[in-house]
Amino acid sequence: MKYHVDGELVDADEATVNVRDRGFLYGDAAFETLRAYGGEVFEWEAHADRLRETCEVLQLDHGLSDADLRSRIDETLAANDLREAYVRLSVTRGVQPGKLTPSEEVDPTVVVIVKGLPRGGRNSTPVWDGPATLQAVRTQRVADRAIPSKAKTHNYLNGILARLELRATGADEALMLDADGHLAEGATSNLFFVDGQSLKTPSLDGPVLPGITRDVVIDLARSEGIPVDEGAYTLDDVRTADEVFLTNTTWEVRPVETVDGLDTEGGPVTTLLSKLYDERVESLYD
Amino acid sequence: MKYHVDGELVDADEATVNVRDRGFLYGDAAFETLRAYGGEVFEWEAHADRLRETCEVLQLDHGLSDADLRSRIDETLAANDLREAYVRLSVTRGVQPGKLTPSEEVDPTVVVIVKGLPRGGRNSTPVWDGPATLQAVRTQRVADRAIPSKAKTHNYLNGILARLELRATGADEALMLDADGHLAEGATSNLFFVDGQSLKTPSLDGPVLPGITRDVVIDLARSEGIPVDEGAYTLDDVRTADEVFLTNTTWEVRPVETVDGLDTEGGPVTTLLSKLYDERVESLYD
Repeated sequence: MKYHVDGELVDADEATVNVRDRGFLYGDAAFETLRAYGGEVFEWEAHADRLRETCEVLQLDHGLSDADLRSRIDETLAANDLREAYVRLSVTRGVQPGKLTPSEEVDPTVVVIVKGLPRGGRNSTPVWDGPATLQAVRTQRVADRAIPSKAKTHNYLNGILARLELRATGADEALMLDADGHLAEGATSNLFFVDGQSLKTPSLDGPVLPGITRDVVIDLARSEGIPVDEGAYTLDDVRTADEVFLTNTTWEVRPVETVDGLDTEGGPVTTLLSKLYDERVESLYD
Repeated sequence: MKYHVDGELVDADEATVNVRDRGFLYGDAAFETLRAYGGEVFEWEAHADRLRETCEVLQLDHGLSDADLRSRIDETLAANDLREAYVRLSVTRGVQPGKLTPSEEVDPTVVVIVKGLPRGGRNSTPVWDGPATLQAVRTQRVADRAIPSKAKTHNYLNGILARLELRATGADEALMLDADGHLAEGATSNLFFVDGQSLKTPSLDGPVLPGITRDVVIDLARSEGIPVDEGAYTLDDVRTADEVFLTNTTWEVRPVETVDGLDTEGGPVTTLLSKLYDERVESLYD
């Protein structure tokens, strides 16, 4: 496998960053997880926009165009002859003199990691091993005032600590609440649930990543006439919901079969949205 | 310069970690900043204890003894012929299969970075450029419920965002408050202030790193009969204090000359504690 590091394609085993890179020292880096279908990255503009927002939060002025970043991804996919793939694009603040305060002058390190990931969707198997088991954890989502949740960065310990709590439970996704006790998100996923006629998801007013798949699913629901409410919800709301599912770029739409060990039935809205998502992918890519 | 990476001494330019190392991908790593005086690391046991606590929080079972870690530092100092030095020791969770949830089996990456740092102290110049200018910032310290503050990790964006707010102000250290509005700490330092007869510092009940230098200074004050209060304080408390100073391993005791642009006088307690700290270092190391 070849990865793209600092402008060059290199063997995965030799794909490294300097130990003084701020991406390593401090997690001072922005990233995006993307999927390629049919050799093309899905929702590139949305990912490029979010990466830009992350870099704005970090005041990380890397000076690279979206087209440049995109071409590094495309080159990596081509070098590995990959059409259906997972892609991780990272932009770090690079190596700087040994101070925590960043210099305005940035020599970024750009890293593209890929691996083959069979398309789910129609006539195929999803990437996840069955529906998710979801467990609310004690680890609270980091508050927006501490690190804005719209920034997708290499500071991922909050989610890791949440996942570590699952070791005792056997669940496979951790549900985090905010400091007010409202539902935020999973360690790597956005939360949706169905209550009566409407689809509900925690609002971006809380510490919630603006997921690209979350956006696509909201669009698909609205285009089918399903009302979508973005609000502040409690654990009880999701535990008593008719249907629950999670979204992220890799999982797409992943049904939830238990919340805190309690069964949640699958249902027609999850099935419909999953099918519509697959159709959107199929309609765009061969 | 030679660094120590994954068990070997390597040239600094070639000191790298794999891009799939979790220390890079997620900041999933513990670290300590240490100082060597006279070729020996100061307060090694305290640093080794705190590193162990960080790894317990991260459930990062690296399997390495304190003696092993210490020997990597000693080898690095010797290889560079350094007696007065800054040292950064990092232990990452290493490379694992591509999931956020950590495997229990850990193949850690250990990195030691050093650079020469002249001893401050008696008859010498401190490492900092004059007293600190301190500015309270909007960025809140991450809550303990999100990421415990006693864990010193490669997730350092909270402090970086705090420091970025200083670009407009010219101040050189950012003072963070917690979600309740109580003083927490600087981006890389613990806060102390003198009010009447007593020395005050935010309690470890809040989101405050248990600084090694903080501990040494509290010991020194008590040994001189200066009362030390650890409590919950407000910005107004520090803005009206008689003396203010910051501590960390690199700065040792650093006086503060302004808080939010307002002058704070230096004073006898800061001077005394700084002198006692220098004497402790001098008494231990040639």
